[in-house]
Amino acid sequence: MLRALELAAQGPEANANPRVGCVLVADDGTVVAEGWHRGAGTPHAEAHALARAGARAGGTTAYVSLEPCNHTGRTRPCSEALYAAGVRRVVHGQSDPNPAAAGGAAWLRDRGVEVVGGVEAETAAALNRTWTHLMRTHRPWVTWKLATTLDGRSAAADGTSRWITGEAARADVHEQRARCGAILVGTGTALLDDPHLTARRPDGSLRETQPIRVVMGMRDLLPDARVLDDVAPTWHLRTRSPKEVLDALAAAEVHHVWLEGGPTVAAAFLADGLVDEVVAYVAPVLLGRGRQSVSDLGITTIADALRLAPTDITPIGTDVRITALLKEIC
Amino acid sequence: MLRALELAAQGPEANANPRVGCVLVADDGTVVAEGWHRGAGTPHAEAHALARAGARAGGTTAYVSLEPCNHTGRTRPCSEALYAAGVRRVVHGQSDPNPAAAGGAAWLRDRGVEVVGGVEAETAAALNRTWTHLMRTHRPWVTWKLATTLDGRSAAADGTSRWITGEAARADVHEQRARCGAILVGTGTALLDDPHLTARRPDGSLRETQPIRVVMGMRDLLPDARVLDDVAPTWHLRTRSPKEVLDALAAAEVHHVWLEGGPTVAAAFLADGLVDEVVAYVAPVLLGRGRQSVSDLGITTIADALRLAPTDITPIGTDVRITALLKEIC
Ligand SMILES: NC(=O)c1ccc[n+]([C@@H]2O[C@H](COP(=O)([O-])OP(=O)(O)OC[C@H]3O[C@@H](n4cnc5c(N)ncnc54)[C@H](OP(=O)(O)O)[C@@H]3O)[C@@H](O)[C@H]2O)c1
Ligand SMILES: NC(=O)c1ccc[n+]([C@@H]2O[C@H](COP(=O)([O-])OP(=O)(O)OC[C@H]3O[C@@H](n4cnc5c(N)ncnc54)[C@H](OP(=O)(O)O)[C@@H]3O)[C@@H](O)[C@H]2O)c1
Repeated sequence: MLRALELAAQGPEANANPRVGCVLVADDGTVVAEGWHRGAGTPHAEAHALARAGARAGGTTAYVSLEPCNHTGRTRPCSEALYAAGVRRVVHGQSDPNPAAAGGAAWLRDRGVEVVGGVEAETAAALNRTWTHLMRTHRPWVTWKLATTLDGRSAAADGTSRWITGEAARADVHEQRARCGAILVGTGTALLDDPHLTARRPDGSLRETQPIRVVMGMRDLLPDARVLDDVAPTWHLRTRSPKEVLDALAAAEVHHVWLEGGPTVAAAFLADGLVDEVVAYVAPVLLGRGRQSVSDLGITTIADALRLAPTDITPIGTDVRITALLKEIC
Repeated sequence: MLRALELAAQGPEANANPRVGCVLVADDGTVVAEGWHRGAGTPHAEAHALARAGARAGGTTAYVSLEPCNHTGRTRPCSEALYAAGVRRVVHGQSDPNPAAAGGAAWLRDRGVEVVGGVEAETAAALNRTWTHLMRTHRPWVTWKLATTLDGRSAAADGTSRWITGEAARADVHEQRARCGAILVGTGTALLDDPHLTARRPDGSLRETQPIRVVMGMRDLLPDARVLDDVAPTWHLRTRSPKEVLDALAAAEVHHVWLEGGPTVAAAFLADGLVDEVVAYVAPVLLGRGRQSVSDLGITTIADALRLAPTDITPIGTDVRITALLKEIC
């Protein structure tokens, strides 16, 4: 199973599908074949391993990090494929949280295949944390990113904010963007900063996969806005409702949204309880005054403050990255 | 010398005098006696070691972390004492930055004692960083402490700020206060928060040494203010000039000031270039609005931001402590 998890981790994180690994093991313990899912449109991990095993799949035990799907999508159900190949026993990690795809374990058991579930289930679920969240709650996981001075400013009084954080932190942001399905800002940020909202390498070149660029708000974008170039898809959603935006993204199977502000949109998501995680880059800089990273949240007294649970604190260059959850993972 | 530095570190940090260690070593390498300075009013490290060595001091080499003083204060000059005891050779770390006390090495050399200086000098100076700063610049080292939310608030909109940071961070503040000669706030903080400004242990009991409590500003304190109790000395300095406050503290031989705000006084020190170091406790909390930790610094554009050099980043409980220097140590 640990090997299956290793294989799963080779799959792409920014993808509609979960990352899954599969190892077919013969009775004598020899590995017959391995497989993993390489993203939507490619075979599932089980199909990948079965294809590599050919006739040798018969009588093996399949270790799969996620319960085999029972659902005909772009590929036929993995439960059927495993059964047809003569797999004798299936050991899986996480149970499928996707109602449309679940039932694989039961389907196999009905046909006399031995099924053991829940092995390393937590590790397996952590590997697909944001996808699991979408399956369970029908809304994408939202990570709000902020870059701030020690005294809580995200831009100087004249609006300049390039750069508060150092090069290493900015490179880290691009790495994190590349792991998400969408980058979101409000029309305010789009009109004022004219950001590109792409995921780039430190040398400035574009990464292979680009998140969808989403701008929310009623105002028109400028026709020559950088987000309207053709290096990545861009959606301008003419709404101020965080929920509507997340519904549209969920419908497109986006499970991880990288919210880059600005303060108004960030406050709207926080006030609606729609932020799951905060990634704050704190720079050793003082400004005294300037723009704040989040607008009014309707909180007036310390007892009502939003208290986060930090999961990671990492110095990056001269800055510190603080990652924290808004609430316990459900 | 490393042993002398170890001994020095046993001395009290919050003291008018520097921390110094001394080891007397015989020609065959055996340690004859050790000594260290235990604070103003007690013998210097050299005198401590000489007293323990008695007649055995003759012919030894004295390893001292700081150049022996040449100045009659509460005790007679150490240069004289070492010479009188027949010490043959003196190896010292930091050269004395105190113009009133310096000259010990030259005095000894004139009398035929071999003197080697500058051994582990940087480590020795770091041990007395704030004292060295006072000797060189004639003003105390100022550490500004702030406690802030991720979005840069140091109190909620209604003024409540207990507590933004967790218990562990608050305990750390008390430990840091105990290392300083004075704790400084403005009349604003004194009148609004009525703080005690003492250094306490986690169980609430007072630590042995208490910094001087200093309140600066023109307004009267309330007669029943907590800072006016008798557990520690309190100075109310009726001035708004950071320089005047530091001059008064320098005259009292205070070399390390712990500036706890509020925002107005912090901004005054920062704007005058009188903050040497920042210790920021950043809590994983969001408030949206509320009081800021520092007032206007006259900075309007990002290019003029105060950029700090972080020296330490330590998670403390659920908070992060970021220590950073305003400029290179001189
Ligand atoms: N340092 C950082 O981390 C960071 C990150 C991003 C931005 N910023 C700074 O933030 C500044 C822009 O601030 P901003 O607040 O205008 O940006 P914003 O939050 O990106 O955009 C606000 C605009 O979005 C629309 N909108 C969408 N949803 C809304 C809702 N629920 N409630 C209200 N309005 C909604 C409104 O415009 P419509 O009238 O069009 O609907 C609103 O004016 C820029 O100067 C930028 O530099 C800093
Ligand atoms: N979270 C934290 O780290 C932290 C720490 C401390 C305070 N606070 C908060 O800060 C708030 C108090 O804010 P504050 O700004 O009034 O506090 P402050 O900076 O302590 O006091 C300001 C007052 O000090 C006097 N003052 C002294 N030097 C001055 C100068 N150079 N320029 C101008 N005035 C000078 C003035 O009063 P006179 O008219 O008397 O001269 C001024 O009104 C409290 O609510 C407290 O909770 C937060």
